[in-house]
Amino acid sequence: MTTATTPTHPLVEKHSSALDEAAAALAARSYYSRYPESPSPRVYGEGAAERGTAAYEAHLQKPYAALADQPGDGTTVGDEVSPYGPALGVTYPHLDVDGAIAAAEAALPAWRDAGARVRAAVCLEIVDAINQRSFEIANAVMHTTGQPFVMAFQAAGPHAQDRALESIVAGLVEQERVPGSVLWVKPGRAKDGSDASIRMQKDYRVVPRGLALVIGCNTFPTWNGYPGLFASLVTGNPVVVKPHPRAVLPLAISVDAARSVLREAGFDPALVQLAAEADGEGLAKTLAERDEVRIIDYTGGPGFGAWLEENGAARGQLVYTEKAGVNTVVVDSTDNLRGTLGNLAFSLALYSGQMCTTPQNIYVPRDGIDTDEGHLSFEEFGARLGAAVSKLTGDDARAVELLGATVNEGVRASARGLAALAEEAGGTVVLDSRSVSHPAYPDAVVQAPGLVALDANREDVYTQECFGPVTFLIGTASTQQSLAQFRDTVREHGAMTASVYSTQEGVLDAAREAAADAGVALSENLTGPVFVNQTAAFSDYHGTGANPAANAAYVDAAFVASRFRVVTSRRHV
Amino acid sequence: MTTATTPTHPLVEKHSSALDEAAAALAARSYYSRYPESPSPRVYGEGAAERGTAAYEAHLQKPYAALADQPGDGTTVGDEVSPYGPALGVTYPHLDVDGAIAAAEAALPAWRDAGARVRAAVCLEIVDAINQRSFEIANAVMHTTGQPFVMAFQAAGPHAQDRALESIVAGLVEQERVPGSVLWVKPGRAKDGSDASIRMQKDYRVVPRGLALVIGCNTFPTWNGYPGLFASLVTGNPVVVKPHPRAVLPLAISVDAARSVLREAGFDPALVQLAAEADGEGLAKTLAERDEVRIIDYTGGPGFGAWLEENGAARGQLVYTEKAGVNTVVVDSTDNLRGTLGNLAFSLALYSGQMCTTPQNIYVPRDGIDTDEGHLSFEEFGARLGAAVSKLTGDDARAVELLGATVNEGVRASARGLAALAEEAGGTVVLDSRSVSHPAYPDAVVQAPGLVALDANREDVYTQECFGPVTFLIGTASTQQSLAQFRDTVREHGAMTASVYSTQEGVLDAAREAAADAGVALSENLTGPVFVNQTAAFSDYHGTGANPAANAAYVDAAFVASRFRVVTSRRHV
Repeated sequence: MTTATTPTHPLVEKHSSALDEAAAALAARSYYSRYPESPSPRVYGEGAAERGTAAYEAHLQKPYAALADQPGDGTTVGDEVSPYGPALGVTYPHLDVDGAIAAAEAALPAWRDAGARVRAAVCLEIVDAINQRSFEIANAVMHTTGQPFVMAFQAAGPHAQDRALESIVAGLVEQERVPGSVLWVKPGRAKDGSDASIRMQKDYRVVPRGLALVIGCNTFPTWNGYPGLFASLVTGNPVVVKPHPRAVLPLAISVDAARSVLREAGFDPALVQLAAEADGEGLAKTLAERDEVRIIDYTGGPGFGAWLEENGAARGQLVYTEKAGVNTVVVDSTDNLRGTLGNLAFSLALYSGQMCTTPQNIYVPRDGIDTDEGHLSFEEFGARLGAAVSKLTGDDARAVELLGATVNEGVRASARGLAALAEEAGGTVVLDSRSVSHPAYPDAVVQAPGLVALDANREDVYTQECFGPVTFLIGTASTQQSLAQFRDTVREHGAMTASVYSTQEGVLDAAREAAADAGVALSENLTGPVFVNQTAAFSDYHGTGANPAANAAYVDAAFVASRFRVVTSRRHV
Repeated sequence: MTTATTPTHPLVEKHSSALDEAAAALAARSYYSRYPESPSPRVYGEGAAERGTAAYEAHLQKPYAALADQPGDGTTVGDEVSPYGPALGVTYPHLDVDGAIAAAEAALPAWRDAGARVRAAVCLEIVDAINQRSFEIANAVMHTTGQPFVMAFQAAGPHAQDRALESIVAGLVEQERVPGSVLWVKPGRAKDGSDASIRMQKDYRVVPRGLALVIGCNTFPTWNGYPGLFASLVTGNPVVVKPHPRAVLPLAISVDAARSVLREAGFDPALVQLAAEADGEGLAKTLAERDEVRIIDYTGGPGFGAWLEENGAARGQLVYTEKAGVNTVVVDSTDNLRGTLGNLAFSLALYSGQMCTTPQNIYVPRDGIDTDEGHLSFEEFGARLGAAVSKLTGDDARAVELLGATVNEGVRASARGLAALAEEAGGTVVLDSRSVSHPAYPDAVVQAPGLVALDANREDVYTQECFGPVTFLIGTASTQQSLAQFRDTVREHGAMTASVYSTQEGVLDAAREAAADAGVALSENLTGPVFVNQTAAFSDYHGTGANPAANAAYVDAAFVASRFRVVTSRRHV
């Protein structure tokens, strides 16, 4: 008979209490963070920021040498250009797909047999190593996504790292729910009354699905990339990371860090590989069409997302997608107009609305709303919100630290097209998107948020995702209609976020009902330093999987439970 | 501010300890059963069997009146004919699909808002009610599937009920892992050193996916139907049960029982509806093409299963499928030849091999195997296994209690075609499938297992599922080749079960490795009263989801975790 042994590794002891603490935090869903979000030298050490910038700059204008040991086809790719202007000039070795898949599959058995706890400890060691490179990654994220620096540090650094750890412990807990071995005794008596119980030993072995593919996006390469990466890795699956061709460097650094830790921990670095591609190459499709790929995590446009889901179903792949939606705010009334306007203006301005969580549709009754500053008409509310945005983004030098730079031509065209959009929609431009000059980067295209008012009957306009600094103020007959439109449009078109402002308990209750029906998380009366576009790892789910915007959530049990399977062996004892 | 309240119901108190006990058993994965498998009057009461038979007979030759309150289109369907001969003559109201969907959706909110624990208690009450109808259901299963009576009682009764309870508590545990409400406090200090912590209340609301569809199969309508039915129901989703047109009655009785309990418990019976169809109507496809359907559980052929998976991906449906595979036995050596042969013969004979878990491919080295009765050549082993089957099934009156009746023409054609199959495969008929006369049912077509020997190079023959009383004895160069073929064919074609016989620890280890690679559960050296085709609820997973035979397992966390979603609402406090 075999005896189930628990594999061990020096990193298990090192990280045991951290893993247990994080697992407890995830179960409690209260506040928890391992990685400090403050970029202050008091936290990350004197000179950390400067060293990170130097490390970033050392990558520029040359091949990313540390990844040269991946199975390559001898060519290189890479033509990233910073939304702030400069070309990065980094080139990456281009994978030989067959070789990469073979290497990943060869690396699988030892990783599988290491067991869940060893894998989790190694994964945490990777995230710790990534954390040490937060400033380097912040620069890389800033210059590929256009995020302003502090946001690039926080969202792509510690916040993404906390999401990674959340994935790791979610996967660990899920695997550890399966006992390694049990004695199964079915009671029985023979006809003579003697014991005729049946005894079996049953061993339950966690096995990975196989090769996992992570398809990164342009705007949040690490924040949206890590959950799938670490959920797959901790459950035993080798991962190929296919970054967006315009946001390779942040994931290259992350993969590099992962491979270094894996190598030092005695595992095959082929467990994590970077599949950089030339723009337009279609490498994600090439990889998704390989039957060896068993899991796909994708963030990006709905067209390719839908293709991945259908292609994946035909191949038996697990496919997790985050696509697009129409994030919604319902404004009914407030006892803190100033706080409401300030909070909303910040939500719209942050990264120029280029977050998958930025509000797009703000429903306001045409009769206006009651506030602590008296009744405001629809037009007055629009004017006040416009003024709040203008004030927040009025000073160029300060504004760029909030707005960042526009990531691509599509966003820029949206920002420039407000007048035409308003005319087409029979609406009005409440606030045009202002072009902001970046004092340090003259080539950056920076746009402040614009507001277009239109009528609730123009669903043809506002139920399409309009990515970037464009928000619709939608006039409705009543808050009741606002809530009904919220519910129906999110059910049909999806949303990552929703919020409501009301002083009426009845309206808040109705908003909760509408949010439950629509399958979207609701923030209520945010007037302070928490914004609807931000979710906290270990507490807030990102996405729900209950509306078309995303088929999964960061991070619930469903996000990890199917990434591994259990194979039993049983025998009499 | 809202206060999260826990809904309650008289059934919660009634079933609280039973639910907790079952949940603990599921976590431990050791032996557990709520529903006694013995049909003895000492267990189910004097006269229970007779009353069950009478209840079954009372259904015959008339409309199933208790389901007449479903939204119908005014027509009836039903032309079930017992594999034992008699036509059942039961007709069922035919659903009005639009009306049924509307009724289910109208029933959803109250069921959703009842909360997980109330739902679990009501579901357990349903299974208890079904248990009380075990003899009635046993007759119905016998006369729709062809199962022998005792098997119909056990597998379609208590064993299926235990699987149902397993689903219920798996779903309950998964929902209760999500806290109802938490206080989230992010610590912070203002510049003046005062507390600037951010406090939010976050409420987590479990919401169902929406309408669920269960598509039943002909051979195991309840055993394969209940897990999906109760997993969806306990997680808040209304369920439409679409039985196989030749096995309606067992699910009609089950749905009837469910509706009665729901009604008595104060819920809308439209939470569980029966969608009986005429043979060839294609109602499963009609229902699967409705966007209101969010979850599908399917057991049946691989063609329609693949269509459901792809159709479902395009609609964002969750689709759980159990399709077909090539169940495998690897025979290397044994120290208990008699036990091995007896166990294998029983596995092949039970229900004439019409189980999704019956072995199809038995690999034996051409050089033969070592046993406690000396070395047996490949031919000798085949002859001994054939003799064991013949002995087990030699007496017609006793044989029919094990074999049951053949369920359809496809199975009968397979049984009759062994000589042609052997010739085509360049093999030999080791044991022809014997036609057995049923002493009580002259029209029943009863077939004992047949054995065809062929060479391992005839993968074209043995990698196709050959459903029914046909087993291949496959001659290999060595056990090493047996294990390699086992691994490769299961990876490619799937399997629900596998077993190995060997006295060598090295061979058993290699078999475990092959099973892990193939993603199939392994039984080792079964020589007693446990059979490879049987799995025990609460301990053995049925299927793994790790090979093409099934994309899910009864019942792991992944089987339930995605059937509900969590919608958060958060606000400052």
